[in-house]
Amino acid sequence: MGGVGGGTGGDDLSRERLARMLLMRVSEGGDAKLGRRVGHIGAVAVAAELLAGASPLPHAEALLTRVPASAHRVEDAVAADMRAAERLAARLVIPGDTEWPTQLDDLGPRAPLGLWVTGSGNLRLLALRSVSIVGARAATPYGTAMASQIAGDLTSRGWLVVSGGAFGIDAAAHRGALRAGGATVCILAGGIDVPYPRAHEGLLADIADHGLVVSETPPGGAAMRQRFLARNRVIAALTRATIVVEAALRSGSRTTAREAAEVLRPVMALPGPVTSPMSAGCHRLIRDGQAVLITGADEVHELLGGPPADAVPEPDPTDLAPREARVLDAVPRRRPAPVDGIVRVAGLTTTDVVIGLGILESRGLVEHRVDGWVRT
Amino acid sequence: MGGVGGGTGGDDLSRERLARMLLMRVSEGGDAKLGRRVGHIGAVAVAAELLAGASPLPHAEALLTRVPASAHRVEDAVAADMRAAERLAARLVIPGDTEWPTQLDDLGPRAPLGLWVTGSGNLRLLALRSVSIVGARAATPYGTAMASQIAGDLTSRGWLVVSGGAFGIDAAAHRGALRAGGATVCILAGGIDVPYPRAHEGLLADIADHGLVVSETPPGGAAMRQRFLARNRVIAALTRATIVVEAALRSGSRTTAREAAEVLRPVMALPGPVTSPMSAGCHRLIRDGQAVLITGADEVHELLGGPPADAVPEPDPTDLAPREARVLDAVPRRRPAPVDGIVRVAGLTTTDVVIGLGILESRGLVEHRVDGWVRT
Repeated sequence: MGGVGGGTGGDDLSRERLARMLLMRVSEGGDAKLGRRVGHIGAVAVAAELLAGASPLPHAEALLTRVPASAHRVEDAVAADMRAAERLAARLVIPGDTEWPTQLDDLGPRAPLGLWVTGSGNLRLLALRSVSIVGARAATPYGTAMASQIAGDLTSRGWLVVSGGAFGIDAAAHRGALRAGGATVCILAGGIDVPYPRAHEGLLADIADHGLVVSETPPGGAAMRQRFLARNRVIAALTRATIVVEAALRSGSRTTAREAAEVLRPVMALPGPVTSPMSAGCHRLIRDGQAVLITGADEVHELLGGPPADAVPEPDPTDLAPREARVLDAVPRRRPAPVDGIVRVAGLTTTDVVIGLGILESRGLVEHRVDGWVRT
Repeated sequence: MGGVGGGTGGDDLSRERLARMLLMRVSEGGDAKLGRRVGHIGAVAVAAELLAGASPLPHAEALLTRVPASAHRVEDAVAADMRAAERLAARLVIPGDTEWPTQLDDLGPRAPLGLWVTGSGNLRLLALRSVSIVGARAATPYGTAMASQIAGDLTSRGWLVVSGGAFGIDAAAHRGALRAGGATVCILAGGIDVPYPRAHEGLLADIADHGLVVSETPPGGAAMRQRFLARNRVIAALTRATIVVEAALRSGSRTTAREAAEVLRPVMALPGPVTSPMSAGCHRLIRDGQAVLITGADEVHELLGGPPADAVPEPDPTDLAPREARVLDAVPRRRPAPVDGIVRVAGLTTTDVVIGLGILESRGLVEHRVDGWVRT
């Protein structure tokens, strides 16, 4: 099974995955020039021409500065990411995976090249019935109370709440969903292993335990201004609708609303006292016709026509590639096993097992628990 | 000058005025059947056929029960109203008067047959730059503070605030306008001499001193449910726009908003905390697209494009009817004179003088002060 490592064979999805891992490592989210080139010749070819110093991209040189000098093959360049994935029990979800949320394609060349995902649950299926709740970090007690309440009510009604894990509205939304006993998805600006804000380390761990933590920034990547803006487009495009709970007149939440409108997702905003600057952005969105006024989960539910019934594809182990079939055979049915145990049983490299487990998880065939992997 | 009294001569406007006074006395505001008949054959003929027991109106009998049994002529039937007008220094403004706000004609057969008016200022001119502020009686401190603030800000920007004199939002709006040093107009459901609510007797006196108190209900008429609903259409049609500051889900303010929309006046609503039932009606109006969200006077001003410059018609004493000319001659230029003094000087009946003074006031030629009438 040297295909993944040597580029001399192996299945296409693995080469594609490694190529995207590299391109995500060297670029920033929403790089439309890169996205267009990938659309034309494919990620594998784009990665190859980049490493060969033959990329026609105007910013190829800038991208190359992020490749370790010692890297001559794609897998050298992404070795650290693969190790991180193993350490974090994270997976890279890319287009073509069962778990890929195809609605992200609405972003065109600005669509993420892939998403790093950690936690239980299938991103695509969760996203199908998801609503994002976003808003000000400097939220008022009114705003956080309402975000929490709406998130809880939506969760009880079968919706999945997506937010950005920030202070204020984001955290209140995640917490409301968790308190209602549901899953929730956090899209981070930095790497999935970089708790941001630091104070939310525990919250993010809770989210990963009951849902997913997601980012297009590779593991270890810092949360930076540009990445917050890029992240907002993912939140907007991933979900069926975006609810702005509180926002100042100039705010990131309003950019999320703009991104949502651009991909034709409904935007909703919660009104508040006109004396509160934290509601001014919401009022502006409503007044300008960019958002529909909502006062609670009932109205969101009504506007969206209810969450779609989960159409979970039946897991079908018969159409697996040889490597995944071998990994699946090595995963116990009852008591979870750690990755190194599966590596021993399967007789494959750690990289192959980690990638294989990610693919199997995305198909709903295995799941990750605190103490290891087990078949579903 | 027996024309007004005997119906055997006199000017048409006086006969028209007396006829409408009668029809207003026997009907309720917004009586479309009556309004249509008046539109077809004129108020004088409708009053005459009614008194003669020859009215084809389906509810003629019900209307007639309100005519005193002793009344054989129109002026018998409205004698009490004429005395009240004199006592209250009130005037009846009817279509054709310079002071008639012609925008009320947008109500079609539901337009008021006339309006009883007391106070200084020209109703038509004031209404041209007017905005109504309406809302819940059981308003919250947030609502009353905002109503007062918006009313004051609009007043400072040259707008005239119209409301209904009720507890809560209405009173706050009137007070905000008065505090800003402006005029304000109160449209009552009962007679202009029936302070409602009783606790607002002082406020209504202040409004009459600095603006106008107006009603289509004849003097002495009680404020009743049906009249509140009918009154709302006058508020809506009289003003350039209606602002709902706070309203429960089911509320009179929402009927005012509906009336405004029906005569194509913009409706605006102030948002508030979604936890406040008093903002629920506003949120519903906004959400359903029946009202535009506004957060303050600036946005109202912007939406309406600023108040029109007051185009006060130059008073022209040369086109007066003989009676009005004679009354005007009897009104002093410096020290105000009471009505009986003017009656003596003019050598006319009290009725003629009161009607004449109303017409002269509507043309801006005389004005009523605490101690009597004086030329402007």
